[in-house]
Amino acid sequence: MLNDEKFTRVLTDVENGIYLENFTISHTDVGDPGNWLITKRRLHGGLSDGVDEITVSNSELSFKVLPTRGMNLYKGSYHGIPIGWNSPVKAPVNPAFVNLMDMGGLGFLKGFNEWVCHCGLASHGGPGPDTITDDQGNVVSSTDLTLHGRIANIPAKYVEVQIIPGTPAELVIIGVTEEASFCGAQYRMTTRISTKVGSSLVTIRDEVLNYGALPAELELLYHSNFGMPWAEGGAKLFAPVKTLCPRNSHAASDIAIWDTYQQPVAGFPEQCYYADMYGNPEGETLCVLQNAAGDKAAALRWNVRQLPYFCQWKHPNDDREAYVTGLEPCTSFPNHKSFERANGRVLTLEPGATYTTQVSYQFADNPADVQKLKAEVAELQKCGPATINPAQLPQWTPDA
Amino acid sequence: MLNDEKFTRVLTDVENGIYLENFTISHTDVGDPGNWLITKRRLHGGLSDGVDEITVSNSELSFKVLPTRGMNLYKGSYHGIPIGWNSPVKAPVNPAFVNLMDMGGLGFLKGFNEWVCHCGLASHGGPGPDTITDDQGNVVSSTDLTLHGRIANIPAKYVEVQIIPGTPAELVIIGVTEEASFCGAQYRMTTRISTKVGSSLVTIRDEVLNYGALPAELELLYHSNFGMPWAEGGAKLFAPVKTLCPRNSHAASDIAIWDTYQQPVAGFPEQCYYADMYGNPEGETLCVLQNAAGDKAAALRWNVRQLPYFCQWKHPNDDREAYVTGLEPCTSFPNHKSFERANGRVLTLEPGATYTTQVSYQFADNPADVQKLKAEVAELQKCGPATINPAQLPQWTPDA
Amino acid sequence: MLNDEKFTRVLTDVENGIYLENFTISHTDVGDPGNWLITKRRLHGGLSDGVDEITVSNSELSFKVLPTRGMNLYKGSYHGIPIGWNSPVKAPVNPAFVNLMDMGGLGFLKGFNEWVCHCGLASHGGPGPDTITDDQGNVVSSTDLTLHGRIANIPAKYVEVQIIPGTPAELVIIGVTEEASFCGAQYRMTTRISTKVGSSLVTIRDEVLNYGALPAELELLYHSNFGMPWAEGGAKLFAPVKTLCPRNSHAASDIAIWDTYQQPVAGFPEQCYYADMYGNPEGETLCVLQNAAGDKAAALRWNVRQLPYFCQWKHPNDDREAYVTGLEPCTSFPNHKSFERANGRVLTLEPGATYTTQVSYQFADNPADVQKLKAEVAELQKCGPATINPAQLPQWTPDA
Repeated sequence: MLNDEKFTRVLTDVENGIYLENFTISHTDVGDPGNWLITKRRLHGGLSDGVDEITVSNSELSFKVLPTRGMNLYKGSYHGIPIGWNSPVKAPVNPAFVNLMDMGGLGFLKGFNEWVCHCGLASHGGPGPDTITDDQGNVVSSTDLTLHGRIANIPAKYVEVQIIPGTPAELVIIGVTEEASFCGAQYRMTTRISTKVGSSLVTIRDEVLNYGALPAELELLYHSNFGMPWAEGGAKLFAPVKTLCPRNSHAASDIAIWDTYQQPVAGFPEQCYYADMYGNPEGETLCVLQNAAGDKAAALRWNVRQLPYFCQWKHPNDDREAYVTGLEPCTSFPNHKSFERANGRVLTLEPGATYTTQVSYQFADNPADVQKLKAEVAELQKCGPATINPAQLPQWTPDA
Repeated sequence: MLNDEKFTRVLTDVENGIYLENFTISHTDVGDPGNWLITKRRLHGGLSDGVDEITVSNSELSFKVLPTRGMNLYKGSYHGIPIGWNSPVKAPVNPAFVNLMDMGGLGFLKGFNEWVCHCGLASHGGPGPDTITDDQGNVVSSTDLTLHGRIANIPAKYVEVQIIPGTPAELVIIGVTEEASFCGAQYRMTTRISTKVGSSLVTIRDEVLNYGALPAELELLYHSNFGMPWAEGGAKLFAPVKTLCPRNSHAASDIAIWDTYQQPVAGFPEQCYYADMYGNPEGETLCVLQNAAGDKAAALRWNVRQLPYFCQWKHPNDDREAYVTGLEPCTSFPNHKSFERANGRVLTLEPGATYTTQVSYQFADNPADVQKLKAEVAELQKCGPATINPAQLPQWTPDA
Repeated sequence: MLNDEKFTRVLTDVENGIYLENFTISHTDVGDPGNWLITKRRLHGGLSDGVDEITVSNSELSFKVLPTRGMNLYKGSYHGIPIGWNSPVKAPVNPAFVNLMDMGGLGFLKGFNEWVCHCGLASHGGPGPDTITDDQGNVVSSTDLTLHGRIANIPAKYVEVQIIPGTPAELVIIGVTEEASFCGAQYRMTTRISTKVGSSLVTIRDEVLNYGALPAELELLYHSNFGMPWAEGGAKLFAPVKTLCPRNSHAASDIAIWDTYQQPVAGFPEQCYYADMYGNPEGETLCVLQNAAGDKAAALRWNVRQLPYFCQWKHPNDDREAYVTGLEPCTSFPNHKSFERANGRVLTLEPGATYTTQVSYQFADNPADVQKLKAEVAELQKCGPATINPAQLPQWTPDA
């Protein structure tokens, strides 16, 4: 880099009236020896009208960030191999067109097509009534929670690009998204998405601040979705499981092959497995999704102190419906919030407090690199045995 | 035309990042001897903010297409006579401002002001609960259907203008609109709206593709609405009726004058008549709405093999509420979908299958041309008698 | 001014295709000796994306008008002192992102942050079911009213700036907002917001026209909200009360200090007091909110013939939740509409009829000016005694 100073450019700052509809910066702009590119554009037309999209390419890995959808990662590519999945929803959807209350609280599914989708922050998991109280503590009405909460359908109020000098340089997108209402909880999520030039890894770090004056419940889940060629018939999930159980009887019926992906079947009902994982002394853990041939893998890295729970979602369907798996580190299981609350897994964020979580995604496209990732899992599994419960754990979820 | 090649211009293509906010093409641009004009603009402000509007004028007939509202036809004009109606909703409404669940599922009415409004595709007709099942076939919740479905409130993802050489040339607007969700039905509607230069006729052809992997139910209705001066006190509907019945007792009370339009009455409750029509050996049929003086007429042409049912909607009200009639060829009657399903009228579209429908609108503004249209109806009526049922047919609709 | 003609500029006119994204006019543009400025811009990004904002500065007083949110006043400033309040919702919210049905009908609270917020027009007050009937007078469904109605979440279809010559000149913003649906009530609200150059006062006049053919119910409330430094611990409300009562038992418990603002308390449940006021022979009245030191005051002026009722809303909370009071002249109390209807306070607007209301906001920032305002209140109080009911009046509201 020509100098050692960090490059910063604000793309969006609602309160200060800043908005760049288009923006491009590349290595040549800052004299960096790498070969990278960041572009920002606004989509027009269809359900994507008004969606902002930032594309980051670090020369090996590229990905799209959607500030308009809670700083989610849309699609990506590693060495030209597509990352993401084939949702029936074919382009990023502006939340203005999403009615989360639609379809009995499943309206979220009309905009759901991201590689990594933030779920939360007041709730995630299934829809349905949850009790709310008025200013005076009386129950005035029941609020209908909607699938996976709101944060994925809130546009970021602040977006910034940073280039941090180094060898290699680091490419950073910052976004600030607020989920708030008067007389309601107030969450400010500051998202930092970063990758180093030439790296096979991208990291999302989220700091959720309660900027209100009262304690607020918090649920956060990273719905990390992989379709073909990462997930496919014969693909396998390697994870340092401590305990794992099926979410319901349909998942239980295939508990013996929980870590193996089936061949595509049209209309196959989803299967979920709930788990917790071993981590190293600092709490760091990972799981590895390996394709059938064993020459490709996508790895997730996170910290079990931040995200103690994990949901594996299998949707091994005809790819016209989407063949996809969700690998989902979370602060609580994606059951209805009332169930998680009753089981003590819903976090409480005190006024002024921040909860920080970090998830990294890493890719390998040759057997040697796949082996290295799996070796890491094997090393963590030495912490103890994997207890696979063939039946559900009652404290984890009901078979609805 | 200067050459024989078709002119094509893509105005919107979300997936390929194409969007023209403004566009104009006329006969002079392509050296055509006709006198026509196509313009596209984006509306700004009010509830219309962000609505795309394409105006096509073929020298005799003009009409506006709304890609932002499911490729509906907004208003038109024939020899300077306005086509459409005076909805209380005074400008095209961006679906972002429409909550279909509002007003007990009647939110559709807050954006309803088009001449021709697509109703469907998963459902049309009245609002109310319909059962949905989860991935595993269990009933998890009841979805609240909303009046006339979703397609009119989905923006087209792809829009194209075509000029097809000929004597006369043909002016074509293509639009692609997707109604889809993850874990839901997946419809891709490709709409082709065309008119020939100097013609009194415009044709809408829709091809609905099920691009999912599972069979999907389909309901489609063309809510074709005419106010003054086409519909007015003393106007008449001519149609080759096979069978016709009132929708409810209020309609039954006026069954004797079903084909005559009343003088305006403020607050008059709507009346609907359900019918099927005779067609020629190819299934082609038409109906003709003639004004009181008999010197103007609007005709609808469709095929009873594609659209076997028909609803005549009479709303002969004070024009501040809208004096309007809807002439509505449909795949099923606009009852609640559960009733139509029980009566075997809801279509099923297999994966990869397409259902094609076509409706044309033709105008006459002199007695001779009106007579010609009515003669066509009379010719079709020779296929058999019109059976007018003074009471409802129970298999057609309940008197709620 | 260079000449005596009124300057007029249309900023938005949806039906005629006029829209200025940016606009500026100042005293120099028209040769006025004053020192004033009007600017219009469109916000981009976050939940504010697509919001139009007009800033008017008359040299002493400035305020922002939000055409996109029913011509509400957002924030202001008097001699540099901020006017408004610290809602957890940190920027103007485009109604496209507000689902009024959210949170059991409290979705309004996700966009609520204005200094003056129009509530109405079909209803204001609390959410919950209200009965609707179909075209034939039958009860077909229950509509769920949402908190404070719809008008604050409807964008104006027409916006105009006027500069009226004079000494001083008058700065005027006109807006037309329609709340309407097919088969529903049709309200056209023409808002005129005006201030004279150098004045401490801004006036909002609204004319609500029923442009339909049937009588329509009408409820209208000016949710006029003041945070610090106008409202604060020790601030007082001076008002020529005729009768006043608490809305519920929690408010009743502090009836003795109804006119005094408490110190901030996190999580304090709101308290409301319902009142009617004495006016002068023309019906003109005012109330004055004085800060703790008595050197600042915000006054509201209105006419009790137009707005016969008044709600004082106290929310003396930690300012992270918002320390705020609402001073709310209204056509009916902000109870659920069904209760107001039963008590005869819901207005009926005949077809073609207009209901006009006017509210002015005036500011003082020195003890002498504060005293003058309070003297006006004292003068009106001579009309009769203030009856403070320590318990609720049953005809005013139930203790839910």
